Formats: sequence, structure tokens, C-alpha cells
Amino acid sequence: MVKTDTSGLTQLGGAAALPASPEEAVLERVPHTHEGERYVARFTAPEFTSLCPMTGQPDFGHLMIDYIPNKWLVESKSLKLFLGSFRNHGAFHEDCSVYIGKRLTEFLDPVWLRIGAYWYPRGGIPIDVFWASGPEPKDVWIPDQGVPPYRGRG
Amino acid sequence: MVKTDTSGLTQLGGAAALPASPEEAVLERVPHTHEGERYVARFTAPEFTSLCPMTGQPDFGHLMIDYIPNKWLVESKSLKLFLGSFRNHGAFHEDCSVYIGKRLTEFLDPVWLRIGAYWYPRGGIPIDVFWASGPEPKDVWIPDQGVPPYRGRG
Amino acid sequence: MVKTDTSGLTQLGGAAALPASPEEAVLERVPHTHEGERYVARFTAPEFTSLCPMTGQPDFGHLMIDYIPNKWLVESKSLKLFLGSFRNHGAFHEDCSVYIGKRLTEFLDPVWLRIGAYWYPRGGIPIDVFWASGPEPKDVWIPDQGVPPYRGRG
Amino acid sequence: MVKTDTSGLTQLGGAAALPASPEEAVLERVPHTHEGERYVARFTAPEFTSLCPMTGQPDFGHLMIDYIPNKWLVESKSLKLFLGSFRNHGAFHEDCSVYIGKRLTEFLDPVWLRIGAYWYPRGGIPIDVFWASGPEPKDVWIPDQGVPPYRGRG
Amino acid sequence: MVKTDTSGLTQLGGAAALPASPEEAVLERVPHTHEGERYVARFTAPEFTSLCPMTGQPDFGHLMIDYIPNKWLVESKSLKLFLGSFRNHGAFHEDCSVYIGKRLTEFLDPVWLRIGAYWYPRGGIPIDVFWASGPEPKDVWIPDQGVPPYRGRG
Amino acid sequence: MVKTDTSGLTQLGGAAALPASPEEAVLERVPHTHEGERYVARFTAPEFTSLCPMTGQPDFGHLMIDYIPNKWLVESKSLKLFLGSFRNHGAFHEDCSVYIGKRLTEFLDPVWLRIGAYWYPRGGIPIDVFWASGPEPKDVWIPDQGVPPYRGRG
Amino acid sequence: MVKTDTSGLTQLGGAAALPASPEEAVLERVPHTHEGERYVARFTAPEFTSLCPMTGQPDFGHLMIDYIPNKWLVESKSLKLFLGSFRNHGAFHEDCSVYIGKRLTEFLDPVWLRIGAYWYPRGGIPIDVFWASGPEPKDVWIPDQGVPPYRGRG
Amino acid sequence: MVKTDTSGLTQLGGAAALPASPEEAVLERVPHTHEGERYVARFTAPEFTSLCPMTGQPDFGHLMIDYIPNKWLVESKSLKLFLGSFRNHGAFHEDCSVYIGKRLTEFLDPVWLRIGAYWYPRGGIPIDVFWASGPEPKDVWIPDQGVPPYRGRG
Amino acid sequence: MVKTDTSGLTQLGGAAALPASPEEAVLERVPHTHEGERYVARFTAPEFTSLCPMTGQPDFGHLMIDYIPNKWLVESKSLKLFLGSFRNHGAFHEDCSVYIGKRLTEFLDPVWLRIGAYWYPRGGIPIDVFWASGPEPKDVWIPDQGVPPYRGRG
Amino acid sequence: MVKTDTSGLTQLGGAAALPASPEEAVLERVPHTHEGERYVARFTAPEFTSLCPMTGQPDFGHLMIDYIPNKWLVESKSLKLFLGSFRNHGAFHEDCSVYIGKRLTEFLDPVWLRIGAYWYPRGGIPIDVFWASGPEPKDVWIPDQGVPPYRGRG
Ligand SMILES: [Ca+2]
Ligand SMILES: [Ca+2]
Ligand SMILES: [Ca+2]
Ligand SMILES: [Ca+2]
Ligand SMILES: [Ca+2]
Ligand SMILES: [Ca+2]
Ligand SMILES: [Ca+2]
Ligand SMILES: [Ca+2]
Ligand SMILES: [Ca+2]
Ligand SMILES: [Ca+2]
Ligand SMILES: [Ca+2]
Ligand SMILES: [Ca+2]
Ligand SMILES: [Ca+2]
Ligand SMILES: [Ca+2]
Ligand SMILES: [Ca+2]
Ligand SMILES: [Ca+2]
Repeated sequence: MVKTDTSGLTQLGGAAALPASPEEAVLERVPHTHEGERYVARFTAPEFTSLCPMTGQPDFGHLMIDYIPNKWLVESKSLKLFLGSFRNHGAFHEDCSVYIGKRLTEFLDPVWLRIGAYWYPRGGIPIDVFWASGPEPKDVWIPDQGVPPYRGRG
Repeated sequence: MVKTDTSGLTQLGGAAALPASPEEAVLERVPHTHEGERYVARFTAPEFTSLCPMTGQPDFGHLMIDYIPNKWLVESKSLKLFLGSFRNHGAFHEDCSVYIGKRLTEFLDPVWLRIGAYWYPRGGIPIDVFWASGPEPKDVWIPDQGVPPYRGRG
Repeated sequence: MVKTDTSGLTQLGGAAALPASPEEAVLERVPHTHEGERYVARFTAPEFTSLCPMTGQPDFGHLMIDYIPNKWLVESKSLKLFLGSFRNHGAFHEDCSVYIGKRLTEFLDPVWLRIGAYWYPRGGIPIDVFWASGPEPKDVWIPDQGVPPYRGRG
Repeated sequence: MVKTDTSGLTQLGGAAALPASPEEAVLERVPHTHEGERYVARFTAPEFTSLCPMTGQPDFGHLMIDYIPNKWLVESKSLKLFLGSFRNHGAFHEDCSVYIGKRLTEFLDPVWLRIGAYWYPRGGIPIDVFWASGPEPKDVWIPDQGVPPYRGRG
Repeated sequence: MVKTDTSGLTQLGGAAALPASPEEAVLERVPHTHEGERYVARFTAPEFTSLCPMTGQPDFGHLMIDYIPNKWLVESKSLKLFLGSFRNHGAFHEDCSVYIGKRLTEFLDPVWLRIGAYWYPRGGIPIDVFWASGPEPKDVWIPDQGVPPYRGRG
Repeated sequence: MVKTDTSGLTQLGGAAALPASPEEAVLERVPHTHEGERYVARFTAPEFTSLCPMTGQPDFGHLMIDYIPNKWLVESKSLKLFLGSFRNHGAFHEDCSVYIGKRLTEFLDPVWLRIGAYWYPRGGIPIDVFWASGPEPKDVWIPDQGVPPYRGRG
Repeated sequence: MVKTDTSGLTQLGGAAALPASPEEAVLERVPHTHEGERYVARFTAPEFTSLCPMTGQPDFGHLMIDYIPNKWLVESKSLKLFLGSFRNHGAFHEDCSVYIGKRLTEFLDPVWLRIGAYWYPRGGIPIDVFWASGPEPKDVWIPDQGVPPYRGRG
Repeated sequence: MVKTDTSGLTQLGGAAALPASPEEAVLERVPHTHEGERYVARFTAPEFTSLCPMTGQPDFGHLMIDYIPNKWLVESKSLKLFLGSFRNHGAFHEDCSVYIGKRLTEFLDPVWLRIGAYWYPRGGIPIDVFWASGPEPKDVWIPDQGVPPYRGRG
Repeated sequence: MVKTDTSGLTQLGGAAALPASPEEAVLERVPHTHEGERYVARFTAPEFTSLCPMTGQPDFGHLMIDYIPNKWLVESKSLKLFLGSFRNHGAFHEDCSVYIGKRLTEFLDPVWLRIGAYWYPRGGIPIDVFWASGPEPKDVWIPDQGVPPYRGRG
Repeated sequence: MVKTDTSGLTQLGGAAALPASPEEAVLERVPHTHEGERYVARFTAPEFTSLCPMTGQPDFGHLMIDYIPNKWLVESKSLKLFLGSFRNHGAFHEDCSVYIGKRLTEFLDPVWLRIGAYWYPRGGIPIDVFWASGPEPKDVWIPDQGVPPYRGRG
């Protein structure tokens, strides 16, 4: 196995405080040692929370991010801090979901990236957002995310 | 098998309109042909709805009613109409659940009766209400209701 | 292992037509070779059907029968024919469930017997019936039947 | 993140009564700040109810709406009120499901929209309706709705 | 919403006896008010039963019917009676499943129709039959039926 | 149904900001109109989050609170704000779970109260805390909370 | 419904002993009365067992067979005996699965046939085999087999 | 940890052929190094098969055995061979289940032992047998076996 | 909330290597700030592995530990290291499960402690071990562990 | 059935120690007796563990490997030893998953191979890796792996 070059990382190891906002969060990346391989890495983040921009009340979401790396892999601690940076930040559901997808796409320049955002219900009608950076590549294995539909009670 | 005496029923057969309120709903009962037998009849009503008394918005619930009959069985069409009578009626969750339990207990004079009311979430925190007419009789088989806990998303 | 005495059976082996009614169905039994052992035999019958005595329309139920044998074991083919005899017979849900429990109890004279009858929904509100021949014996292992609650859709 | 323009909305914030019928319900929309992005927003509404046009009895459904926005996003409170407007309104299952799909399509002019309507059983045989505004776009990620089939009991 | 024309129906409303055989069952249909829309209506019938033509013993099945209407919608009460007409009728599993699919296709002249028949096990090896009137139209949304595989015990 | 007296409430209706800490959160209560009835109210809060007191990183938990009211019912909006007050507050898992149970018990003086706190995994080994104000009353119906065990992957 | 011609069958009806080996097992077939219809018949056999050719210890498998009939239907009792013939016969997992698929294909000359063999774990790592007689026909409805992945414990 | 004394074992290590019948199977045991501890060991055997004594056809069962050891632990390879010895042996379901329980109880002289035998369906109505050597000890933790009920299809 | 005294801990914070054996592992504890409260803390460890003492091959288990603290809480990082110390250590399933329970009981001197050890299958028949330090206290809430039974395939 | 040639194998039969590293592990293969058949063999390995290269702490994964054999089948005991060789070896999740896929592809020269690696969560956000040796062949049946998404708690 080849060695991952972690020399450029600044947040790994020490204790890192949550960034105050998504804009202040610093994403980090490491060189992709398997460049040219077309495969998917999936991150599942059931611990996402932000604030409702209308009421200031907490919102919760279950996020799943799939991407096909190109020259970079996302460094997972910086991804965690980036997602944590929404904690005290107001964001509409559709907008927040698309923003995360676009920011990661811009930073990682992947072959392809998508995000499924499954928001906890508000007013009895939860919203899910399914965003991708482009059409699904036909030559790569991309399993369904498989989150069961919202059910209410009973 | 003995014959159930349905001679006193008024709502069976024809088309019956939803009562305008729980108070106007007419519960009906038939003589219990197995008087003395101690067993449980369970009704599961996943189609309950009422109005929030503060906001007028619809509320939804999944109700389960268990009872040990004494001299009467509830006539199921009248039970359906009774539950339907909350449709355009304001009721707090705790109060509504207990009211249904008490009204049925009063009307049927059962050996024992309980209601589990599993309300759909409002504000992210659903409430369940578990009311019984008295302690669970130790000599009767009363299975758990088995409704899975509310899960949110993911 | 001891040998089960099947000499008194009349329905086993040949092709037996469905009895025309529960009253005409002939239950059969074999001597219990483990008399004195206190254990439970459970039969699960997800293929039960009868007719609604009010409308003549078919009703369906999922039945589970638990019993602690005394001197007799029920012969399972005769049990199947007995349950099949309701096919073209009108019966109320509560009454039918209790009748099956009582008829088996009378015929087998078991230490204890119970029936859980889980009826398919009519009018959106299914009924379950939980009947036992007496209080659950405290010295015998009797697992829950574990049927999940009716859920509607979603 | 860009700012959503909510200046044209009339129902947000204050308490809004349920519209008396679907025709009287006022759908609202906000400009889509990510115009050009092709992604799916999904709304899951397990709290839908209407009346049977033949009998006046309540019907219940679990609805799921997927759409690819074009210039507009649906304002979710108005969507909720629109769905709530069927509460005391008679509608056949097929017709009601298709009507909701068409009305939203007409109002939002989306790239594509579909509705899955999973109705609670009547007479033992529930109906589902799967309507879409056109063929599924091949270049957009559209997960299955994943509602399990109706199961009856057992 | 447009009005469904039910003027030609003969079985709706009154109490209708089960037809004695599939041949005697009368299917009914109503004009399709959304002609030209390409969508799927799904009926799920977990309450199907027939007789084994070899032994006369009852068989049970879970049926799911999907169709894309053309000029007609099936009237659901007549569908229920048609399925009920197999109750005392002998039919092989493969043949019965295909027959239902073909009879409905012939009567409704739909754009497309399919039936999934999931039979209860006989001899430890249940059979499922998946029949369609033709290849799946590529421009219509047709969700999987999603019935879990037979599992035996444990 | 009797009327709940909400005259003493201060947080209902208007927009209320999240309290800065649990100590600053103001719980509110309404008189219990069914005093003397012994039943359980259950709140399920899958949207709980706090901070790790050692690292400052977010923690997440799924909380379930069961109580038997005495003279007071908890006002649910104040409960929500109380739980939300942990959002930017450091707390050990065991301590936090017990604190919530004790604070509610002190404030509501219920017949009995319990809290099940199911924390998201840290280091591969999640902790659950099951606290009750005293032994389970034998004469009241208290269903299991039914949260499935943590499973890891696969 | 047309009549299935069973005149050529030799094993149906009487009691048939398990064949001593797959080679000795006699598969039987009946003429396909719906020749030309392209549909799938699925057999699910959770009761398969053979012997490990290295150690002689029993192996167990859950088999699912899908086929599109051409001129013949497999007679199900002969299929059962064929599968039972592996009971005291040594066979490697991959080889056994492919052999069953090929033997059935050769005998039935179907339009298409596949077998999914889900073997019970040995050494902690179960093997599944998915064999088909050729590419999946694009014009026929072939649902997924839907067996959940092996999970170990927890 | 103390050392288990395996000196008396004869079947461990080498390849052992399946015994020809339960009577010929040799159970083995090792001294219990935690004598006096009251705890439960559970074996789950989803790979059990025997022959029907009436027809010679294979039967299948899922067995679960719980016991509280006294002076001996069962050696697991000999248990496996004992269960495998039923492979070509005729046994009635009730009798076979009780026999296994009794034979193990006699051999191990445990504080307590029970067996749950969940047989695969025959004739649509599977039987389960729940046998114990005596009443459940009240001072030992004995979790439910948790096998879901037989469900048929759908 | 009171402050947990972590002054005596030696392994927290820095990187700690896995102990070479259970005997070398150092468990740590912190004073229990809620002494006198009778509640349960549950740890779920699906990542347990040890070696088979006969073959040296890896074994895997899913462990659940419940305890009622007395004067001490276990420090969770030391618990993790203790469980990790079995990684390259030979241990029989029964012995290993009981050893962990006893070692924790000795070290924490809890009111009560139990361990459920659900081992991955070997030879098709997994073993579970359920050990407790004494009878279940009747005055404390101790939910079932709820691990589903081993199922094999299908 | 043809005979598998196992003459070249060196690890089968005797007790084989875990290789000290993946590099030292010796994969073995047997000639493929069904060369030319295009089918999938799937191995499911829920017992995978390695070490984190940054902290030395254990990592756990659930691996699923699908391949279409060409001239060789992997010998399953050598596969097990290969996977076991990561036990005391440091490896990043992405790198480790891809390495296993590539090493097997190189050794077996299959028509196609893929690996799904479902890692246990670290820091609340588990990673999955989906690697394939090339695009999915369109003419072979390759079922989804069907692992449910990570869920956290509740
Ligand atoms: Ca896809
Ligand atoms: Ca529902
Ligand atoms: Ca109970
Ligand atoms: Ca979640
Ligand atoms: Ca019980
Ligand atoms: Ca699709
Ligand atoms: Ca099984
Ligand atoms: Ca309890
Ligand atoms: Ca696992
Ligand atoms: Ca398909
Ligand atoms: Ca118990
Ligand atoms: Ca069913
Ligand atoms: Ca308990
Ligand atoms: Ca199985
Ligand atoms: Ca696929
Ligand atoms: Ca949750």
C-alpha cells in the first residue's frame, strides 16, 4: 500500500474548535494515491444540525455524501469540522444541502459528487434534497443510499 | 357459535355521516355472548385525526385500544364514527387520549380498558399517551402493543 | 424416542375434503407420549378465512394457537381441516376467535390453551382477539407471539 | 449561501386557517436561487386525508412528491395548507393523486415532478398511484421512494 | 377535479354476492378522466385464495397488480369480486396468475399491465409468478413491488 | 373534555430563543386536568445535542422521557427549549442524562418519571443511560421504549 | 383457464423417496399452456442441504430460481425431489449452484433461467453464487431477489 | 482466566463423520470452570434437518437451546454432531424437540435447560415447540429468544 | 450539574497502545457523582475480537454490558482498551464472557452488572452468553438488550 | 458435476497461522471448472479488522467482494487468511479497501471484480468505499449488495 501524504494538514491531531460558520470552516485534502481509479467514497453523517433562518430554532438532518475522487481525497476531520460549522448558523434546507454539495465539489474537483440530505420533519412534512454535480457516471459502481422513507407513527 | 344480538343498533348498514363532535357521537354496543370469558379485544386505528386547539392545524395519531369485555362489546362501526368525530374538533393530545379511554370505559363498563395514543411529531418531539382504566389484570393475556419508537430520519 | 400412536386417526393419508362448516369438522387427537412434561406447542395459521355474517364478504385472519398438552396432542391435519371449515361459513371476529379457542380446549383438555387472532382490516380499524383458557401458568415457558401491530401505509 | 427572497409570501408567519377546498387553496413559491442546478427536492406527507366522494367517510393517504425545480421552489407552508385543503373535500383516489401532481406542475413549472400516493386500504385492497409529469430525466439523481408494500396482518 | 362517470356500474352500492367462478365474475370499468396521462395504478390484494385443482385444498396468495390506464379505469369493487370468485375454484398457480393478468388486460385494454403473484408455500418451496402484458414502458414511472423473499423460519 | 389552563405560560406563541444553558432554561407547566388518573406521557426527542466537556466537540443523543403526571403536565414548548439549551453546553453523557431526569422530576413532582438516553457512538462503544425517579409503579401501564440496540455496520 | 396436461408425470401423487444423488434424480415437466407469454416463475427453496466434499459435514443453502418458460414448465414435485437429492451428496458451493442452474436449463430449455444460491456461513465468510443462462432479457419483468446481506451478529 | 480441561474429549480436532442416528451420537462435556456462577449459554442452530416419519421427506427446523450450566459444559462439536445425527432419521416435530431437550438435560445435568424449536411450515401451518426442564429460575437472566412469527407471504 | 473528578486518570487524552493481554490492561474509574441513584449505564461494543485458543484463528463478538453504578463509574477509554486487549489473546467463548463480567464487577463494585456476549457463528451454531453478577434488582429499570437471534441466510 | 482440482493448494486442511501482514499473505486459487460461464461469486466478510495508521487503534469493517471468475476461483481459506492478515497492520480506510480489490484482481485475473467496504464509524461519520475493476458488465447478473445505511441511534 502506498503512503498517504498528510504533510499539508493543519487540523489533524490537536483539538480543533468548531468553526463559527461554514464560511470560516477550512476544508483540507490529501493527494489521492489511487488517481485514475474510478470508485466511490461515501460519508454518512447522521449528526448534522443547523438553525432555521426564520425562527432560529435547531434543525436536524441525516446527510450522505458520495464522491468519485480525482486528484484529492477530503481529509475526514476537516469534513467533520465543516459540517459542524453549521451548528449555530441559519440555513434553509434546500439551500444548505446544495451549498454543501457545491462547496465540496469546488474544493475537491472530483470526477463526480452527490449529496443526499434527509431532514427531520417540520410541520409533519420532511424534505429531502438529492443534489449531484452532474449526471451519474455510467462506468462507476454507485450504490443507492437506501435511507427508508419517513414514516410518521405506527 | 351463538348469535350476536344486533337488534338495538341504529348506525349499522346505512350510510352514516361523521358526527360533528365527540359529544355528538353515539357509541353503540351489543350484548356480549361470551360473558364471563376474560379475553382481550384490540382495535388499531392508524387513521385518527383531530385539530390543534391552539392553532387549528390538523393533528394525526395512531391509536390502539385494548379491552376486556364485561356485558357489552363495542359495535365497531359506532367506534369508527366516534373516532371520526374528532376530525374537525380541537383537542390537546394528552386530554384527547384520556378522554377517549374514559368515554369508552364509561360506556362499555369493561373489566379493563386501555388506550395507547401515538401522536405524529410536532416540533420534533412526538408525545405518546398510555392510559388504562386500572392496573393490568394479572390473570388475562394482554400482549404488548409493539409500536416501534419514533425515529426521525436516517 | 417413543412412538406416537396414530391408530385412531381417520383423516390422515388420504385426500380429505374441506368440512362444510366448523360444526361438521372432526378434530382428531393422538395420545401424548410425553404426558407430564409441561411445554408449549404453537401452531401459526396465516391462511385463515371465513365469511362476514352481515355481508357475506370474505374475511381473513392470521391465527396463532399455543397450548400445553395434557393427555392428547391435536392431530395437525385435522386441525388444518377444522380451520379450513370456516371458509364458507359466516362468523363475527370476536365470536369466531373465542369459538376456536373453546372448541380446541374442550376437545384436547389441555393444561392451558390460548389463541391470538389477528384479523385483516375492515373499515380501516382491524381487530385482534387474545383469548386464553385461563391465567398463564407461571411455571411454563410461553414466548410472546410477536406479531407486529397493524400499520396502514407509509 | 445566497438569500432566498420571501418578499412575495402571504401565508408565512401568521396563523393560517385550512382552506375550505383545494380550489380555494393558494399555493405560493419563492424564486429558485440555484436555477440551473438539476437536483430533486422530496416532500413526504404521511398526514394526508380527504373524504370518499361516494360515502363521505374519511380516506387517508401517505403522499410523496419529488420535483426538479426550474425557476421556482414551492413554499412549504403553502404546500401544507394545500394538502390540508382536501380534509373536508370528496375525491376519488386516482383523481385526487393526479390532480395534486398536475396542480403543482402547473404552478411550479418544474423540470419534472412526480407524486406517489399510497392510500390506506379500503375493502382489503389498497390502491397506490404513481404519476409523473413526464419521463424520468436520465441526467438527474432520483432515488426510489422505497415505501414497503401493503402487507395486511401477520 | 373532473367528475368520474359511474353511471354504467351495476355492482356498486348494494351488497353483491361472490361470483361462483372467475368466468361468472363481471368486471366493470369507468371512463378514464385523465386519458393521455401515463401513470400507474397499483392494487395490492393480500387476501387472495383459491383451491388446488389436484387436492381441493385451499391455496393462498398475495397479489399485486400494476397498470397504466388507457380509456378505462377498473372499478375497484368489481375487481374485488373478480378476485373473490376464485375462492371455491380450482386453479394451478402459474395458470391462475397469468389468467388474471390476461383477463384484466383484455377487459381494460390498458397501455400496460402486470401482475406479481406471491403464493404461500406448499412443500416448502413457494412459487412467485411475474407476468406483464408486454415490455415495461420506458417513459413511465413503475416502482418495484418490493415484496420480501420467502424466508422460512428463524 | 375539560379545558387546559394555559394562563401562566410565558413562552408559548411568540418566537423564543434557545436558552444559553440548561440552568437558564425556564421549564413551564400547566395544571393537570386529569389529576388522579395514573397514566404515562412519553416524549421522544431524537434531536438532542450537547458538547463534549473534554473536547468541545458535538455529541448527539436520542432521548425518551416517560412520566406519570401528578398535579402538573410539562408544557411541551418549554421542554423543547430546555432540551435545546444543551446545544452549546458541555456535559458528560451519564451526568447529562441523570440531570435531565432529576430536573424534570423536581419541577413536575410527578408520580414517577424515567429517561432513556441513547447516545451516538464515540470510540465505537456507545453508552445508554436508563434513569428512573424510583421503582416502576406496578399498577400503571408502562410500555418498553423499544429502541433497537446499536449495531455498527453490516 | 386451459387445462395443464399432467399425463406424462410419474412422481406426482404417490410417495416418492429422495433420489440418492442428483444424477439419479428425475426431473419432470409439463407442456406450457401459455407458450409465447414471456413471464417469470420464481421458486424459493430455503430448505436446501448438501455435504461438504472435503469434510463430509452438512452444508445449507437458501436457493432462488427464476425462469422464463418456453415450451415446458418444471413439475414442482420433481424439482423438490431433485433439490432433495443433494442431501447426502458432496458438492462445492460454486459448482453445486452452477450445476443446478445448468441442469434445469438443459432440461427445460427455457427462454432464460437464473439461480441465486445464498450459502450459510463457513469460517465466518459465506459465499453467494449468482448464475444465469445468459444476459437478462430486456423485455421481461424480472424483480430483484431481495435477499438481505449476511450480517453476523448484533 | 482458568483453563478448560479438554482431556476427556474424543471428537475434537479430527474429522468426525455424522452419527447414523441420535442414539448413536456421542455427546461430550467438559468440566465447568465457573461452577456456581448462574448464567445462560445459548446455542442457535438454524441448520437442523430430519426426516418425516410418515413420508420420509426432509423436515427443517431452526433450534435454540438455552441452559444454565452446573458441573458441565457441553462440548460444542459433539453438540453439532448430535444435531447432525437426525439428518437421515425419522422424527415427529413435537417428539424430536422434546427428545433433544431431555437428552441434553440428562447428559449435562444443568441447573436448567430449554429448547425452542421453530419448524419450517408443512401444510401452511408451522409448529413451534417450547420445552424447558422446569420453571424458569427467577434469579438468572434469561433473554427471550426473539424469533419472529411465521408470516407466509406479502 | 456536578463536576466529574478525572484527576486520577492516566490513560485519557494521550494516545494509548492496546494492552498485550487482558491481565495487563488497566481499568480506570471515576468517582460517581450521583451515588445513591439507582440507574443503568449500558455499553454496546460491536467491535470485539479475540483468538480461538484451539486454532489461533480470530473470533468476533458483539458485547453489551449493563451496570448499576455504586461508588464508581468506569472510565470509558480504559474500558475500550480493556476490551481491545483480547485482540491477540486466546479465550474460549464462555470463559471470556464470564471473565469480562467478573473483572468489571470486581473493579467497579457495582450494585449489579451483567454482560451479554453474542458471538459470531463457528460451525454454523453461534453461542451467546448471558452472565449477571446476581439476580436482577426489582427496583431498577433494566431494558432488554434486544439483539435479534442469529438467522443464517435467507 | 466436475471435480475441482485442489492439488496445488498448500494451506487447506492443516491449521494455518494468520500471516503477519497483507504482503506476507499467500493467496491461492483453483482452476475454474466452469470457464466461460459468466456468473458472480460473492463473499461477505463481516469480521474484518485492521489498525488505524495514525493512532494504532483497531478499526473494523464489513466487506463484500463480488467477482466474475475467468480461469481461476479464489480458494476461500486463503482469502480468509489474507483478510486476517490486516489484523495487526495499519491501513487507511480508502487505501485498504482499494488495495484488497486490486490485489485480488491481479491474482485472479477475473472478468470483473468489485469490493464494497463498510467501515464502522469513527468520529460519528463512517466511510464506505465502493471500488470495481472496471464498468459493470451489462450481460451478467450482479445483485445489489443491500447493506442498509448507517443509522446512529434511535
Ligand atoms: Ca441507482
Ligand atoms: Ca401511519
Ligand atoms: Ca405485558
Ligand atoms: Ca438519525
Ligand atoms: Ca409472556
Ligand atoms: Ca426506477
Ligand atoms: Ca432458518
Ligand atoms: Ca416493562
Ligand atoms: Ca456487525
Ligand atoms: Ca428491475
Ligand atoms: Ca423472559
Ligand atoms: Ca399475509
Ligand atoms: Ca427484563
Ligand atoms: Ca433460512
Ligand atoms: Ca444492479
Ligand atoms: Ca436518531
